[in-house]
Amino acid sequence: MKKHTFSGRVSAGLWLYGLHPVRAALANSRRRNHKLILTEHATASIGRPLLGRVPFEVVSAEAVARCVPPGAVHQGAALLCDPLSPPPLKDVLAAASDKTRIAVILDQISDPHNVGAILRSAAAFGATAVVVQDRRAPQESGALAKAASGALDIVPYVTVVNIARVLEEMGELGFWRIALIAGGEKELREAAPHGDVALVLGSEGSGIRRLVRERCDAAVFIPVQTQMESLNVSNAAAIALYELRQERR
Amino acid sequence: MKKHTFSGRVSAGLWLYGLHPVRAALANSRRRNHKLILTEHATASIGRPLLGRVPFEVVSAEAVARCVPPGAVHQGAALLCDPLSPPPLKDVLAAASDKTRIAVILDQISDPHNVGAILRSAAAFGATAVVVQDRRAPQESGALAKAASGALDIVPYVTVVNIARVLEEMGELGFWRIALIAGGEKELREAAPHGDVALVLGSEGSGIRRLVRERCDAAVFIPVQTQMESLNVSNAAAIALYELRQERR
Repeated sequence: MKKHTFSGRVSAGLWLYGLHPVRAALANSRRRNHKLILTEHATASIGRPLLGRVPFEVVSAEAVARCVPPGAVHQGAALLCDPLSPPPLKDVLAAASDKTRIAVILDQISDPHNVGAILRSAAAFGATAVVVQDRRAPQESGALAKAASGALDIVPYVTVVNIARVLEEMGELGFWRIALIAGGEKELREAAPHGDVALVLGSEGSGIRRLVRERCDAAVFIPVQTQMESLNVSNAAAIALYELRQERR
Repeated sequence: MKKHTFSGRVSAGLWLYGLHPVRAALANSRRRNHKLILTEHATASIGRPLLGRVPFEVVSAEAVARCVPPGAVHQGAALLCDPLSPPPLKDVLAAASDKTRIAVILDQISDPHNVGAILRSAAAFGATAVVVQDRRAPQESGALAKAASGALDIVPYVTVVNIARVLEEMGELGFWRIALIAGGEKELREAAPHGDVALVLGSEGSGIRRLVRERCDAAVFIPVQTQMESLNVSNAAAIALYELRQERR
């Protein structure tokens, strides 16, 4: 079995895995890709046009597995690349100013599977950005990218220093800032406005921090049965994004 | 450190873990519980009334960790219990006949995290049952129960031998059978009827099998951007359940 050794770049790089994340990274002109290893079977799924964008090597499934975390569903493909460095939030928002913008703001949601799933829904419903706070959010990783199913290379995943301050600035830009919480004052469907929206979601454990909530214009809830106190945060995000998009059609 | 040994019952039993699943199992009079081990801190979260329902032992977090899979988020509580054996589907449906019924039918969805998350949404939106096919669905497990966050003890998780046949029977009972697929003919919101509904979801890989789909009255889709071909299946389920409930208010 060939051993894959890479230069010092490896330590700075990132292994993405799975067919959707690898395809999306190869298709993203902003992503700097270094090397792809994949099985014969995966070459057919990814296709020659995308394979032409990166040096690649056809290897065994076992060799792919050695580059990813134990148990990771790699589907025969692993890509060594650099993390993305999305532009500052104001540039991301300005670039999308021609249409109704929905920005998803995550306050201290730490599980990469939840954040990845939220990125996926954000892409599906055409959100402008997913915003997280420095040091309180999962970094770009293989697990995050896998849960995002390619969305990490579609929707800007923007890190900011202070979410409360960002919400202040978004308010000045005319964004209607909605906190989605179980104890909200209005139902989501009644409170969905028609302009730009910042949708704020908190962690399942501790919710949205007070200083962040105080920067919101409204607190809304998704009506659920009393027998179940809450939804999974990525499911709540999906419902809210769906509803906001329905109201904008 | 005390070693926890149990009788032969252990091999037939099941360890549930996490505060929500353990609380829900203790509160469920249909669940046969054998023994709870938990940390001092978790005793306060679970509370004396529920603790009175099962023999329990206060132990270290490490002792709890030894009873659950590596890395499992046990939150200081693990409960040894029997799996539930829900009544036959027709009995479950009959017991709920006084209100509009929504049954969620999962065709070959194998990931326990997805199935657990769907159970959680099913509980949140008052679904009557989650139905899966024997040998093609995850069994009741600690991981499933954790993702369900207690919903496994709220919504009947019913196993059937043949989903296509069950859909035929549900049609005779007056259920409107909806297949949720990316290539559906109608939008979810336009197609949400007002009577009893069977909502059919397939796996992300292979979708709904032909024989199952042929038993459905309609195929509906959730409108998404072309840049993202599909939603995570538990997110799609959450959106559909939300929409069906909104139409029934």
